[in-house]
Amino acid sequence: MTVVEASKLGALAGNVLERAGVASNHRRQQVDLLMEAELRGVPSHGLLRLERIVQRIRNGVTDPDAIGEHVWRSPGFLAVDGQRGLGPVVANAALEALKQRARENGVVLAAITNSNHIGMLGWYAERVAEEGYTVIALSTSEALVHPWGGRRAMLGTNPIAIGIPTGSAPFMMDTATSVVSMGEIHDHANRGEPIPEGWAVDGAGNPTTDAAAAKQGAIGPFGQAKGYALGLAFELIVSSLSGAAIGRDVKGTLDDDSICNKGDVFIVIDGPRRDLQAYLEEIRTLPPADGFSEVLIPGERGRACRDKRLREGIPIADEVLARLQALACLEATA
Amino acid sequence: MTVVEASKLGALAGNVLERAGVASNHRRQQVDLLMEAELRGVPSHGLLRLERIVQRIRNGVTDPDAIGEHVWRSPGFLAVDGQRGLGPVVANAALEALKQRARENGVVLAAITNSNHIGMLGWYAERVAEEGYTVIALSTSEALVHPWGGRRAMLGTNPIAIGIPTGSAPFMMDTATSVVSMGEIHDHANRGEPIPEGWAVDGAGNPTTDAAAAKQGAIGPFGQAKGYALGLAFELIVSSLSGAAIGRDVKGTLDDDSICNKGDVFIVIDGPRRDLQAYLEEIRTLPPADGFSEVLIPGERGRACRDKRLREGIPIADEVLARLQALACLEATA
Repeated sequence: MTVVEASKLGALAGNVLERAGVASNHRRQQVDLLMEAELRGVPSHGLLRLERIVQRIRNGVTDPDAIGEHVWRSPGFLAVDGQRGLGPVVANAALEALKQRARENGVVLAAITNSNHIGMLGWYAERVAEEGYTVIALSTSEALVHPWGGRRAMLGTNPIAIGIPTGSAPFMMDTATSVVSMGEIHDHANRGEPIPEGWAVDGAGNPTTDAAAAKQGAIGPFGQAKGYALGLAFELIVSSLSGAAIGRDVKGTLDDDSICNKGDVFIVIDGPRRDLQAYLEEIRTLPPADGFSEVLIPGERGRACRDKRLREGIPIADEVLARLQALACLEATA
Repeated sequence: MTVVEASKLGALAGNVLERAGVASNHRRQQVDLLMEAELRGVPSHGLLRLERIVQRIRNGVTDPDAIGEHVWRSPGFLAVDGQRGLGPVVANAALEALKQRARENGVVLAAITNSNHIGMLGWYAERVAEEGYTVIALSTSEALVHPWGGRRAMLGTNPIAIGIPTGSAPFMMDTATSVVSMGEIHDHANRGEPIPEGWAVDGAGNPTTDAAAAKQGAIGPFGQAKGYALGLAFELIVSSLSGAAIGRDVKGTLDDDSICNKGDVFIVIDGPRRDLQAYLEEIRTLPPADGFSEVLIPGERGRACRDKRLREGIPIADEVLARLQALACLEATA
């Protein structure tokens, strides 16, 4: 691990994208998204992803100039053809349109397809909630998760993020419906460490604690049958509203050359106007259970990590840093 | 347990409500809701609840004639003052208004307060999905669930139900964000049986397997930190959009004399128009994991139970049946 100042890492990432032909405004959005993941301690959604983004631009399956085509099917329903654009660029353009319309309409929805990986959903939810809207964000992915009681990956990790204005800093939660991310399994495999029981099955669908075997298998849903039911509902909602592919047909967030056919859904609600801080403070100051040092409010650990890393720098894996530097040079001499 | 024909049980329940002064159309809705829970094998949301409903009408905290006052704050946002009406009556009236508006608007939302317990959320989600809409339903309750890492109940069991048209029978999932319902804990206590580890803490906030002690304590969130984050997000969304009470201030679904101040939120989306059955069939026919006889689609076990109970009758606890019969007589001679 090397600790690097946030602004320097951001500049390096921007450099890589500039040399890949991404215009300034789009570059900033993609870099901000990846940097927020690094700042909040979620490296699986951070700069690790940059090489794939560049490769996909080179291979023509990502168009860095596209912002998506917007069609309002009805006053509240925005259908977005992402035109192969960068995930955050297409999502942000949709959210701008939604925010404007939410004030008039009360609640609005965007269903996006033909866009690329949109990264950490909480980034969107928190920013939109800061502006006074309640947001529910859903996104699908390649099939990586097995149904509860099944042996084979049939569902994406299908995260949900929810942002809510509270009177001061917005509430934000962001979680996959899998017990863990595939990134964490790869991370264990890279370090040669076993994974805990219950995380995953191997390629034959049998429970395993071998991280390398789990990479060929499937991750479990969080919370057993309940998390499976939620993950499946999100897969069905996103696919059916956006027209995105479903289940094992989803491609393009984990490879370099497939057109990305997953979907995203954002629901944006005007308001609320209530101050929720007293309630959150009551939770925050509860006596913790044995084995816990405090009761956490979702999102706040990430925010504290962010503050610390902005002051002290971001620890980044040496191989990720080396790849970034190589990418910047490679592009410079290309 | 006594097995009683569904139509007879329904008639008995209707009788009880008729004698409590509930008009025919409202009676039918309340009975249908409770009977659907009995039919689907969820007795905690079934006829067990009827005595409280009658008591609350007698005590003037439920108005059986009210259907709720509707104010469209914007084209998509319906604010409902439930006017102390019966939960299913107020919810159904709101859903009728939403369905009509969803066709024009694409997506609409109702935020309901001052209504009574709306029971099994899946009942609403499934029916509305049958008519071609995607539905997300949320509801809060008295604080019964502790935050992950905390010792004290601060959250409702905060269920979510999602209904989605699929081309034939709609997809429907319905789950509390607690690991189990308070009803199941009471059920264990009544039978003098211990509860599994991880379900609940006692009144001092310590983990317990004593069901009687758990009744004085708090239930755990499902799926640990992730389920806690979801349950908290739902509490904040419902309370902030509807103006309902929050956390430990919520009253009126578990007592006979408090005005009910929890809230409900329904989001109704027009569509989709996609056939999702091939995907669901692919999941249904997966080889099951060890210890499972099949891979289930959420909602389908309840539907199979329903079919069986419509044919063979509903097993009902003798004390619940005796109370219903007494209530019918009591009312008859009152």
